[in-house]
Amino acid sequence: MMVETIAIIGCGAAGATAALQARKFNRSVKIVIFNEEPYSQYSRCGLPYTISGKVASFDDLILTPPENWASLKIEAKFSTRVTAIDHNARELTYEGESEKGTLKYDALIFATGARNADPPIEGLDKDRVYGLRTIDDAKALAKEAELAKNIVIIGGGLIGMEAAEAFHERGVNVTVVEFLPDILLAMVDSDIAKIIEDHCSEHGIKIMTNTAAEAILGDGEPTAVRVKSRETGETKEIPADAVIVATGVRAVTDLAASIGVEIGPAHGIKVNDRMETNVSGVYACGDCCEHVEFVTRKPMIGGLGTVAVRQGRVAGINAAGGDVKFPGIVGAKVTKLFGLEIASTGFTDNLAKRFEVPVVKGSVKGLTRPPYYQGGKEIKVKTYYEKSTGKLVGGQVVGVEDAAMRINVLTLGIQCKINAAQLFDFENCYAPAVCDTWDPIVTSADAARRRLKM
Amino acid sequence: MMVETIAIIGCGAAGATAALQARKFNRSVKIVIFNEEPYSQYSRCGLPYTISGKVASFDDLILTPPENWASLKIEAKFSTRVTAIDHNARELTYEGESEKGTLKYDALIFATGARNADPPIEGLDKDRVYGLRTIDDAKALAKEAELAKNIVIIGGGLIGMEAAEAFHERGVNVTVVEFLPDILLAMVDSDIAKIIEDHCSEHGIKIMTNTAAEAILGDGEPTAVRVKSRETGETKEIPADAVIVATGVRAVTDLAASIGVEIGPAHGIKVNDRMETNVSGVYACGDCCEHVEFVTRKPMIGGLGTVAVRQGRVAGINAAGGDVKFPGIVGAKVTKLFGLEIASTGFTDNLAKRFEVPVVKGSVKGLTRPPYYQGGKEIKVKTYYEKSTGKLVGGQVVGVEDAAMRINVLTLGIQCKINAAQLFDFENCYAPAVCDTWDPIVTSADAARRRLKM
Repeated sequence: MMVETIAIIGCGAAGATAALQARKFNRSVKIVIFNEEPYSQYSRCGLPYTISGKVASFDDLILTPPENWASLKIEAKFSTRVTAIDHNARELTYEGESEKGTLKYDALIFATGARNADPPIEGLDKDRVYGLRTIDDAKALAKEAELAKNIVIIGGGLIGMEAAEAFHERGVNVTVVEFLPDILLAMVDSDIAKIIEDHCSEHGIKIMTNTAAEAILGDGEPTAVRVKSRETGETKEIPADAVIVATGVRAVTDLAASIGVEIGPAHGIKVNDRMETNVSGVYACGDCCEHVEFVTRKPMIGGLGTVAVRQGRVAGINAAGGDVKFPGIVGAKVTKLFGLEIASTGFTDNLAKRFEVPVVKGSVKGLTRPPYYQGGKEIKVKTYYEKSTGKLVGGQVVGVEDAAMRINVLTLGIQCKINAAQLFDFENCYAPAVCDTWDPIVTSADAARRRLKM
Repeated sequence: MMVETIAIIGCGAAGATAALQARKFNRSVKIVIFNEEPYSQYSRCGLPYTISGKVASFDDLILTPPENWASLKIEAKFSTRVTAIDHNARELTYEGESEKGTLKYDALIFATGARNADPPIEGLDKDRVYGLRTIDDAKALAKEAELAKNIVIIGGGLIGMEAAEAFHERGVNVTVVEFLPDILLAMVDSDIAKIIEDHCSEHGIKIMTNTAAEAILGDGEPTAVRVKSRETGETKEIPADAVIVATGVRAVTDLAASIGVEIGPAHGIKVNDRMETNVSGVYACGDCCEHVEFVTRKPMIGGLGTVAVRQGRVAGINAAGGDVKFPGIVGAKVTKLFGLEIASTGFTDNLAKRFEVPVVKGSVKGLTRPPYYQGGKEIKVKTYYEKSTGKLVGGQVVGVEDAAMRINVLTLGIQCKINAAQLFDFENCYAPAVCDTWDPIVTSADAARRRLKM
């Protein structure tokens, strides 16, 4: 069947990429994209930096200016919700600020993203309690950076820590409250997390780990957050004029479920390698869907911009009549906090346990340049290998330079299914001004290779 | 046959690594290492930076302090030449400053390195005309940095350009004379070379390309270098108090040839994947030997520190009774000139022609960070693919940051034999403060993939 109309719900990284790639692939297909937010595609990951000013203006974050859609002959409807879908009739109903209507489609792409999952904390409904997921959240928080003296951030994940840095840079007292024993545990092991905690503490962030936020206190607006140590049971009140809740997200799947699309065990829309759901002609991509973890092929939600655009491309091209595949999620992540680059890929120790893969590790401390050359910086590298096969399955790198790009090498290694011996044979480039003859990622492979007797 | 004694000739990166790895593998074997130079293993690549002061002292370059050899039960004989070898008797004769003698060996490793190849230029025998290959060369040049007003560097390869930067930083007027149409053509294509030439010129280096150095003029010491444009035939005299000749090297193979070791078509000692020569029990590693180019398996001399240590490890372990293999030379290279990182791996356009591999390229200009985030720097990425298979065979990256580590991704890609479509599927990490969602190496693969119709 010729596809004549593609409807895309959601104009984030996944949805916008799907639209652009569908158009690139098929010049004649009609494409309509719906977005609940009033904005065209913007960089969600850039939001924390509008608070600190490292992104100069909110407009800079807009990756596809509204006028571009028309020039690509893509109909983009902002501030518009899809309220119902009749998939038997292949028709959806939408409702905008000034316009209501229906659209007949042949192919439908869900790119509905995720929403903040409200944790069990009292007082979340007060004013000056924020999430940080939308441009409107960021606009409100940018104002708080001028008003608030004390801010409490509940959740020490990527968003929480990036927001912490931004508020600190604006002169606000920042306390991060993390329920787990360490921050960033979705990304790094505890020993690496502790390096990051020390680094951020030295730069003035107060971090309380192993601590439950119980209630946001105050009348109408916060005055403090009551927290409880999970170790000692001790309760404290942390003064707060404003609170950010960054405790994780949940895939938005209701609309998809309403037309019989299967929701998977990772609570995302289930898709195959073509990003197609169980319902023919219906695709999903980005944070709303689950695909597979690369090594085990077990269900996993990416929750990453890189994954969203790659899935969006696949969904868009296939919806437009093509046939391309998404290879699975490795999960390469990176951030920078107070100059420290923190990068990880594939399994951490925790993730390996969750995916039930026994692992062997190589862990080294190295320098970014040879010891004899000025200015080399300490770098910590950990690599993980499947115990039964020696196959590379994960890595973490932390240092003030060249962490992200080293993770890229490891990610490609995971995608190429190399083992510790092959990573040890990796011919890294070398020059005194840049890096040493045996790169720390190679020496970490060497350590593991010996343990694996390869 | 049990190996009781290993003799190693040469204590550079290859020889020293061979000795250390032989010891690591075999705790009882006797190991004797001979070095013509008075120094223990030092970093040859670090030499230019002793001139600029980025390496603080010559002692810092010594990677294995002399006393370490004894503690490893390795006999190290410095300022000692091996003068003759009777391989039938498995005995070599050596001659040091205070000691002569013979040594019976079971296994012999040639790590004799390379020497500067004298180009056909008049006046090379004058004082204040230097190579830059040994610590003694660097010591003499460090003094020249205080004496000379004008220096001419003949040869715009890696060593020549690194020396040029160093002398410029010491306040000396530097002219680089390059015979070929561009500098660094062993490493990059002309378009990339021109970016580097502009950058170095802006920083005050005078670069004359397509220019033959004909004669070093002056009585006893240089006063000028006479050069001739290969384009116009015009002749000029460039004032020079001192001259560096950096026009390339030649493998040192005489001693090996004297015992019947085969010298290959690339003019290096021929070895197999175990780094063993045609003569049983005789190995070679580093700049004196030729192995194979990774993609075509055709003969090639590495001429790189990274390759030397990796080959040295293989030769050392095998000489000590082990059985490991060297996988072939990709040829990853990097340097930094006036803050610009220049990195390449595998085939350039020229190398692809020399190795007779028709290629397709992907070439992109990108930014090291997303456009909306402050401080992203321009980066130029070129990737090469075998036309018949789409397999990645080379890459070049130039930019003021993150060039080297991107080349590392490409090198691993070449080693894993991925094609353009697989590199396009590479899941690079992303964060606004670090890099964008589609890394320039991925978009370069995309460009090539389209051309290859993959």
